[in-house]
Amino acid sequence: MTSPVAMPRPIDPADPGEDPGPSVAALDTIVSLAKRRGFIFPSSEIYGGINAVWDYGPLGVELKNNVKRAWWRAMIQERDDVEGLDAGILMAPQVWVTSGHVASFSDPMVECATCKRRYRLDELPGGESLTQTELRDPEIVTRLGLTCPNDGGPLSAPRRFNLMFQTYMGPVQDDASVVYLRPETAQGSYVNFRNVQQAMRRKLPFGIAQIGKSFRNEISPGNFVFRMREFEQMEMQYFVRPDAAADVFEQWLPRRWDWYVAYGADPARLRLREHASDELAHYARKAIDIEYRFPFGWKELEGIHDRGDFDLRSHQEASGQNLEYFDPVTNEHFVPHIVETAAGADRAPFTFLIDAYREEEVKGEKRVSLALHPQLAPYKVAVLPLLKKRPEIVELCHRIKADLKRDMMAVYDDTAAIGKLYRRQDEIGTPWCVTVDVESLEDGAVTVRDRDTMTQERIPVEGVKRAIMDRLEASRP
Amino acid sequence: MTSPVAMPRPIDPADPGEDPGPSVAALDTIVSLAKRRGFIFPSSEIYGGINAVWDYGPLGVELKNNVKRAWWRAMIQERDDVEGLDAGILMAPQVWVTSGHVASFSDPMVECATCKRRYRLDELPGGESLTQTELRDPEIVTRLGLTCPNDGGPLSAPRRFNLMFQTYMGPVQDDASVVYLRPETAQGSYVNFRNVQQAMRRKLPFGIAQIGKSFRNEISPGNFVFRMREFEQMEMQYFVRPDAAADVFEQWLPRRWDWYVAYGADPARLRLREHASDELAHYARKAIDIEYRFPFGWKELEGIHDRGDFDLRSHQEASGQNLEYFDPVTNEHFVPHIVETAAGADRAPFTFLIDAYREEEVKGEKRVSLALHPQLAPYKVAVLPLLKKRPEIVELCHRIKADLKRDMMAVYDDTAAIGKLYRRQDEIGTPWCVTVDVESLEDGAVTVRDRDTMTQERIPVEGVKRAIMDRLEASRP
Repeated sequence: MTSPVAMPRPIDPADPGEDPGPSVAALDTIVSLAKRRGFIFPSSEIYGGINAVWDYGPLGVELKNNVKRAWWRAMIQERDDVEGLDAGILMAPQVWVTSGHVASFSDPMVECATCKRRYRLDELPGGESLTQTELRDPEIVTRLGLTCPNDGGPLSAPRRFNLMFQTYMGPVQDDASVVYLRPETAQGSYVNFRNVQQAMRRKLPFGIAQIGKSFRNEISPGNFVFRMREFEQMEMQYFVRPDAAADVFEQWLPRRWDWYVAYGADPARLRLREHASDELAHYARKAIDIEYRFPFGWKELEGIHDRGDFDLRSHQEASGQNLEYFDPVTNEHFVPHIVETAAGADRAPFTFLIDAYREEEVKGEKRVSLALHPQLAPYKVAVLPLLKKRPEIVELCHRIKADLKRDMMAVYDDTAAIGKLYRRQDEIGTPWCVTVDVESLEDGAVTVRDRDTMTQERIPVEGVKRAIMDRLEASRP
Repeated sequence: MTSPVAMPRPIDPADPGEDPGPSVAALDTIVSLAKRRGFIFPSSEIYGGINAVWDYGPLGVELKNNVKRAWWRAMIQERDDVEGLDAGILMAPQVWVTSGHVASFSDPMVECATCKRRYRLDELPGGESLTQTELRDPEIVTRLGLTCPNDGGPLSAPRRFNLMFQTYMGPVQDDASVVYLRPETAQGSYVNFRNVQQAMRRKLPFGIAQIGKSFRNEISPGNFVFRMREFEQMEMQYFVRPDAAADVFEQWLPRRWDWYVAYGADPARLRLREHASDELAHYARKAIDIEYRFPFGWKELEGIHDRGDFDLRSHQEASGQNLEYFDPVTNEHFVPHIVETAAGADRAPFTFLIDAYREEEVKGEKRVSLALHPQLAPYKVAVLPLLKKRPEIVELCHRIKADLKRDMMAVYDDTAAIGKLYRRQDEIGTPWCVTVDVESLEDGAVTVRDRDTMTQERIPVEGVKRAIMDRLEASRP
């Protein structure tokens, strides 16, 4: 596996890199395939949809669950030093005061006086490279002469728009009952630090990992599932001695890069980008993004952050609870530092879909396939009859499929000729097809076809499940 | 497996049944064990908590994920007729108007004039058996002479309190931007019915299954994770021809009952309760609850509902989209009927925890164990050294554990003497312990101890993983 240490990608945003990336047309193709084949549907579509929320269909939920499982596996099951957690979306509102989200989790918004459209100032043509200080300058719009990209109308001075959704808990709606939908899972790990450390008898260093939904009331969501108002995160907080943070940061960076590559991300479409000092969030001492070259540009896939002691120290001060760690070896008491890896559970499957997409010509016809990693593919295997008119063939298919389904997602299809059945499975990324033909009834063997090589192998019926399971296991990173 | 058809439980709520159920003291024990051993923590505890939200700790998230996986497996992977889905928590607000939730998903609330406490009228002493009509009667409190259970103060007339959390989407807070946190996952399946049916080329009957968070602003939440304001559901909607609904209902009932029993629910603590006609929700033609005898009484674990054509017909009328199904065999067009199975993904693990809890005396000492189904247990196996001072023993332990961790959740512990290490694993439900002793270094064999029988078996090191995996596989329902 290549690591960014061995082969770093350019950090200069102006550098286009070697790979031109998929075209925007290819993105449309993927969005259309996603809907047509049951990966991702626009939410509430029969009512005209709801902006920036997408629903995962039957194949999408399998793909996404497989990505989440792969992350959980690498992060928790196969490691000795990371614990899982599943904290609530609703938390005590003081958490978000302490974290700084109530005061400053906001984007600079401007509004057009004529068409009333709203924009993020830092995404407007002419506003992209403004510093944080400039983005807060009430004169900035006039000074730069910015106007509405839609109708050229005059734009308001920027005002900060807080991205947290808020609601009221309990039967009274007043200030005391305001709660927020979490904008990140990380705070759930911080407020549970002591509970986890004590219940699991943990010594430093150790991590707490979570997968779960978060919500951000984005001013300008978009780009399919890239920026949604409801989205899912895979975040890990690693608690360390203060003097270990820098080293630990350097260890997690290639681990996380390698994880994407191991599951099918094209390393030529990945790069690292370190945040400039004036770009760092208030809690961060250092931040490097793993970026992916989406059809709409280089964008963040995951952030690795050295958060120092900001989080536990702030929560300790605000809650009055002691969150220090006692080191039994050195007899020191200190507030642990935190290195965070923050990934998107929607962005990761999205990039795997993009990188898996293949178009080629086979025997004069266009063949579309998704070369998804077998661990991520929604169905692992399809069982197909060469002749559905022969009941013994169909019966054998069902027997094989029932056996496979005990251990994996498998599907049967007989609604077309075999060539078309193969193409359908190729298009949804099924790594193997098992075909039962007339000969199978005599020699007790079936054909196993490989999605990527299209090679076929004859295997005795009783060995099919073992063969598929061995291939699946061999594919595991 | 016993099914309720073969062995129905009494439906009379006054019938106590044979099993006295766990005592309230036992519940306290479970809540305390859950916190102490990392299953379930009070959310935001360092800030004094947040009412009716709980966080799953490192062992709790494994248990809960295993329960969800067992449900997904039985519902989707092993069946041929059910598709998975993962729809958003935020949906177009019209969905909740059409479903009836905006108008009538509410509880009757009364407020004490002196202490300002609020109650659900149907949970007040004297209010439990009121009919729906009586609960809406503005005179009912006066007529029955009900007073505040806290200070005896006068209670207000009942008013309807809508249980949906609401928030605003987008940068403007007005009526047009109101959205709701879904109070159930079911509507996500209804509005996606056509998308799923077409993308997956489905014919009736087929189902759509979802696991996901839902939110209800309960007036009186409580009883640990039984009634939370943020909770998770496992719901399946089965679409059928109108004339098939009654039969299909009868098939799903025993399937769902058997699922609980197969994973460790004590059938003596389960019963069926059919909703009386004046108790049925507006969409339901028939409803039977699978109830569980919690320490605080018989309560709903899962509901099986015949919803008729209410859902798809309503969405078709409100959205103007055709949601009829064309039957290619009979050439009919009709709106499918729906049979729903609605389970709680927090209640199920809760009951499995209660039923798994064992206290017994072994050699004069109290032994606590969780006899969790092996498929549900957080760790499948613990690897323990008999003598941690011997580096070869520790090294062998780590080698065995590393091998096991490729395939399952495994843990190493050396922080106590072996007897205590066993007790710790018993208490968190680990089905098997592998112990490495001095003899292991000579004969290359280790001891595998069974949690429930406490029997020990000597197995060659190289056969340990296979032995554990075989036992795990054999345990699968």
